[in-house]
Amino acid sequence: MNIQFLFNQIKAKESYLCVGLDTDIHKIPQHLLQHSDPIFEFNKRIIDATKDLCIAYKPNIAFYESLGARGWESLRKTLEYIPEEIFVIADAKRGDIGNTSKLYARAFFENLRTDAITVSPYMGEDSVKPFLDFPEKFVILLGLTSNPGSNDFQRMKMESGNMLFEEVLMKSQQWGGPHKIMYVIGATQPQFISKVREICPDHFLLIPGIGVQGGSLKEISEVGMNSKVGLIVAVSRSIIYASAGKNFALKARLEAKKLQEEMAHYLSLHFKNYR
Amino acid sequence: MNIQFLFNQIKAKESYLCVGLDTDIHKIPQHLLQHSDPIFEFNKRIIDATKDLCIAYKPNIAFYESLGARGWESLRKTLEYIPEEIFVIADAKRGDIGNTSKLYARAFFENLRTDAITVSPYMGEDSVKPFLDFPEKFVILLGLTSNPGSNDFQRMKMESGNMLFEEVLMKSQQWGGPHKIMYVIGATQPQFISKVREICPDHFLLIPGIGVQGGSLKEISEVGMNSKVGLIVAVSRSIIYASAGKNFALKARLEAKKLQEEMAHYLSLHFKNYR
Repeated sequence: MNIQFLFNQIKAKESYLCVGLDTDIHKIPQHLLQHSDPIFEFNKRIIDATKDLCIAYKPNIAFYESLGARGWESLRKTLEYIPEEIFVIADAKRGDIGNTSKLYARAFFENLRTDAITVSPYMGEDSVKPFLDFPEKFVILLGLTSNPGSNDFQRMKMESGNMLFEEVLMKSQQWGGPHKIMYVIGATQPQFISKVREICPDHFLLIPGIGVQGGSLKEISEVGMNSKVGLIVAVSRSIIYASAGKNFALKARLEAKKLQEEMAHYLSLHFKNYR
Repeated sequence: MNIQFLFNQIKAKESYLCVGLDTDIHKIPQHLLQHSDPIFEFNKRIIDATKDLCIAYKPNIAFYESLGARGWESLRKTLEYIPEEIFVIADAKRGDIGNTSKLYARAFFENLRTDAITVSPYMGEDSVKPFLDFPEKFVILLGLTSNPGSNDFQRMKMESGNMLFEEVLMKSQQWGGPHKIMYVIGATQPQFISKVREICPDHFLLIPGIGVQGGSLKEISEVGMNSKVGLIVAVSRSIIYASAGKNFALKARLEAKKLQEEMAHYLSLHFKNYR
């Protein structure tokens, strides 16, 4: 996939919503447990209920990995079930020395055929490069994350006067442009979004932290949009666990619909004549 | 496992060698491919050939993950096969927001029953804490890695005058002591080892970068040892791929034996009467 296609999808669906598939066997409705693969069954229904409202899905790999080989199989089936035109992000936060990163890249881009993977920048260029060798695939590098711990190192001041996450944004742009790299920027830190846009005006940003974590969609949308929208807002728990009853898929749809409509509004403000 | 037990193992075996199980289906001897699970078959023979010479095994999770559910199964069988008294490190370099790190912790500590997992510090305290809640289990935090990219951010100067990896070592000590946290420090950067020992005199260090990557066992051993040895030196490719022939296990043993004997020598210099 490329960013023009992604932009077209956003315009067509009037949405920049990414549904996070953080599917937890302990949280899904009880009645699904009778199925042979409850995790896949849950995801299938969530996908059916939301696929016209979102432009991306983001399975959090930890949730599948914690179930071993069985979870890996649920993940594979889920990824196969997602419609072709929807952007798929493996939220894996991987990153290792070159020969190892290459294997992770193959695991996610070739075997599982995801469009993007989240990667930690701590080990530097040669840990990220192997992911950039795959055409039409994206690295989504951790910039400023949405959790309290982002304060520990990411926002630490460097000798240069910049914060660490700013150095990450600046240096990594030498490794690949907006057609190869996106950045994770938490919605819980809106005061930094305009600074991020100064450093990388053209990159797509993956924004977690709306919903349960407390970030504001309005604030992010107003400050963060660029000429191709440039935002993918990831929401998981408040959509997929909107209800624990038999109507969970319908409730998930209503939550997603609410966000999509709010996004349509911000899009109409930002792009006067975008349709 | 606890560090006293680990120290006792080191003394008993006169070794602080960790064999890296970076088992690549494309690199293992051809004749193993006839087995139903060649990866496990290879690991089993490597373990049989080296288990009296090393005190730890470190499967690199990428190599298993790249094979999907099947690889996960090979990993599980390998871990079950490793003798109880040997320290097992999942080289996974995970780290995510709290609720996700908790799942990774369960995946590795409860399901796979490894003793330790490597974790990236970039996301800060709440991404590391969930791993620290498991008694007798260890987080091995990335400090200064052995790859060229360690120069990009880890060795960057902070406003404080320290480098980023020094800040990581200092801050993370507030999260857990030597009985909970170890650090990855690459053997390719021996000039920093004494600095590391100033900051964390009592922690165990996991040292990759000997062998293919060019680090010196002698240099690391002379500067890095503490009162409980405090070193776990990880060697992978130069041991497990010492030969691609039918005698691969024997050749692996000879490589491991060479390293163990060198280690016995450094131990005898450091601990005059340690036996």
